[in-house]
Amino acid sequence: MTATFAELWNGIAPIGRARNGGYLRYALEEPELVLRDWFRNQAARRDMPVTDDGNGNLFAWWGDQWGQDAVLTGSHFDSVPHGGGFDGPLGIVSGFLAVDELRRLGHTPRRPIAVVAFVEEEGGRFGVPCLGSRLLTGAIEPAQAAALTDREGITFGEALGDTPAGRLPGLTSRIGALIELHIEQGRALEVPVGVASAIWPHGRWRFDFTGHGDHAGTTRMADRRDPMLTFAYTVLAANKEARLNGAHATMARVEVEPNATNAIPSLVRGWLDARAAETGTLDAVVEAVIKRATERAGRDGTELTVTNESFSTEVTFEKPLAARIAALLGEAPVLPTGAGHDAGVLSAHVPTAMLFVRNPTGVSHSPAEHADEADCVEGINALARVLGDLT
Amino acid sequence: MTATFAELWNGIAPIGRARNGGYLRYALEEPELVLRDWFRNQAARRDMPVTDDGNGNLFAWWGDQWGQDAVLTGSHFDSVPHGGGFDGPLGIVSGFLAVDELRRLGHTPRRPIAVVAFVEEEGGRFGVPCLGSRLLTGAIEPAQAAALTDREGITFGEALGDTPAGRLPGLTSRIGALIELHIEQGRALEVPVGVASAIWPHGRWRFDFTGHGDHAGTTRMADRRDPMLTFAYTVLAANKEARLNGAHATMARVEVEPNATNAIPSLVRGWLDARAAETGTLDAVVEAVIKRATERAGRDGTELTVTNESFSTEVTFEKPLAARIAALLGEAPVLPTGAGHDAGVLSAHVPTAMLFVRNPTGVSHSPAEHADEADCVEGINALARVLGDLT
Repeated sequence: MTATFAELWNGIAPIGRARNGGYLRYALEEPELVLRDWFRNQAARRDMPVTDDGNGNLFAWWGDQWGQDAVLTGSHFDSVPHGGGFDGPLGIVSGFLAVDELRRLGHTPRRPIAVVAFVEEEGGRFGVPCLGSRLLTGAIEPAQAAALTDREGITFGEALGDTPAGRLPGLTSRIGALIELHIEQGRALEVPVGVASAIWPHGRWRFDFTGHGDHAGTTRMADRRDPMLTFAYTVLAANKEARLNGAHATMARVEVEPNATNAIPSLVRGWLDARAAETGTLDAVVEAVIKRATERAGRDGTELTVTNESFSTEVTFEKPLAARIAALLGEAPVLPTGAGHDAGVLSAHVPTAMLFVRNPTGVSHSPAEHADEADCVEGINALARVLGDLT
Repeated sequence: MTATFAELWNGIAPIGRARNGGYLRYALEEPELVLRDWFRNQAARRDMPVTDDGNGNLFAWWGDQWGQDAVLTGSHFDSVPHGGGFDGPLGIVSGFLAVDELRRLGHTPRRPIAVVAFVEEEGGRFGVPCLGSRLLTGAIEPAQAAALTDREGITFGEALGDTPAGRLPGLTSRIGALIELHIEQGRALEVPVGVASAIWPHGRWRFDFTGHGDHAGTTRMADRRDPMLTFAYTVLAANKEARLNGAHATMARVEVEPNATNAIPSLVRGWLDARAAETGTLDAVVEAVIKRATERAGRDGTELTVTNESFSTEVTFEKPLAARIAALLGEAPVLPTGAGHDAGVLSAHVPTAMLFVRNPTGVSHSPAEHADEADCVEGINALARVLGDLT
């Protein structure tokens, strides 16, 4: 078994790719199910038995399954709609290839190693990001997760085929560490491989703007209660508040009822994605956006309700582990990120670290996302060194 | 055959009604096809042979089919998404019941009378309003109409089963007049029945805002090229320009790619519906909106292309006909409307008039649209008097 990066990568590249080059890999739907089959197949080729945790997360084992103090490595298969191919799958492919490299070197691990594929990391289908790792760690109730619906009304429980199992018994003794390799998602990394220091706190808020559906041609401007106006104002307010506070805020998803050219909407629903280096800043930005949106709703004659759909507190990865890895990799740069990851969820319970692979354009969540093959290979070698060092 | 208004109305009320009470009656799809069957059935009960014009418009004849100088009456079955039940169907139901009333009175028409159901009046499926009447009068090329697509990529030609036949040969000698009865769509009518004087010029423009898809969490605010910002600014600019100029402008429909919470969009597509009492005002409003949107795109680093999807010039209904009808109805009020109608399209070719039935709330294109039964019955009696007077 001496697969190269290119062989494995080219094997999954066509799966779920749309004509614009972006990916439509939603959790537990056709292309992602094909990737899960690919995962089982790669594990079988390496004599790595596969278990799942009853939450939709898959584990391929080198050593005792659910033995004590295992070192996990991996990421997720699912994409945002029309996202890039590296965000997630690079960590899983690299996990299998790092195992190959350790075996080639004759390494005999003293702790179990598992390659892991977390389910629904993007929240692209059921709305809650890192759903698989939240379930595994007990950060979300199984019944609540089971009831989450996709855009067609299918629940997560139905897609999974069962109510999720929830928190892994003996989590903190069984999982000794998680090392997640991931493409970097900004332009902050100028060498092939870096180490994560922290993840910004971030969250998603749904803004339901309700107004009064009516005829766009006949309703006098003064008589309108048009929720599209309140939404539009809020989009601009979110952008301004983020810039004023050195945070990130985005309204990138919108649903309109009835969404017809000649009918004033009765409902406009927009989602706010907000992130900042500190929780206090994040809270201030979200509070300011809600305040301004509410004031505008008063002027527009519309109504606003805001629902926090997810919130991820600030993550600081274990400093001694990050320092040890950075030293091992020849003083690799240590840097924070604004992107959420399963490693961030696990970091509240077990030692976690992340390796970042350089992103030359900084583009992610887009068909244009790219990493150079040579950097990916350096990432695999770095991951193998880290896993070898830890086991 | 002595059906009452309530009998006919209750017979069609459940067809295509959604749970919110609004209607999903798209042209040449299931519920509208059921209504077309209902049309053929009502015609058969009255010994009125049905023809179609090869464009999807249906005609039920009392007297010579396509004889000279026929008087048409009717409207359309299709709705905007989640629109009301009166907009369109009231005119068709009233047409059949007016025929019943004339027969009850022993009227013998000297000219053919036809009840007509025009196809795709709202443009809710294929994007061009009054598509059936535009084809009938030659206002759109059959090949162009055939190529229009719905949201699933099905063409109008495919839905129709053939290339449309286009302009009716001998149009102006065969059709002597069209009297369209319609629910009024504002709050301008304070008695049960009124007569239309004019339709405001109006049109639809598609704004394609393109930017740069990227990660909402990691992309610095300064590096973004977010087309949602340009769209949002344009929504507010359109509203402001309409108010400043005494016109109507609405952006009520939007499509976003990829429409994911954590991905800056690569494309936001919004539709502008604009109307004004005079063409000069309408032009000025649309020009100002495009100018301001273009300037903002420059600041946002996005790009804008604008496509005019439809334009309907100002319609002034034939004044002697409107005056004759108003007098016949006991000096009924004569009033303009901002809403487009098939009668407006036909008015460029043959004498046309419209009867409006009072709308107590002024709401239309909404589940809340309503007309009182007593007013609808007055509308039918008025239509019977007008048809009797003309034939």
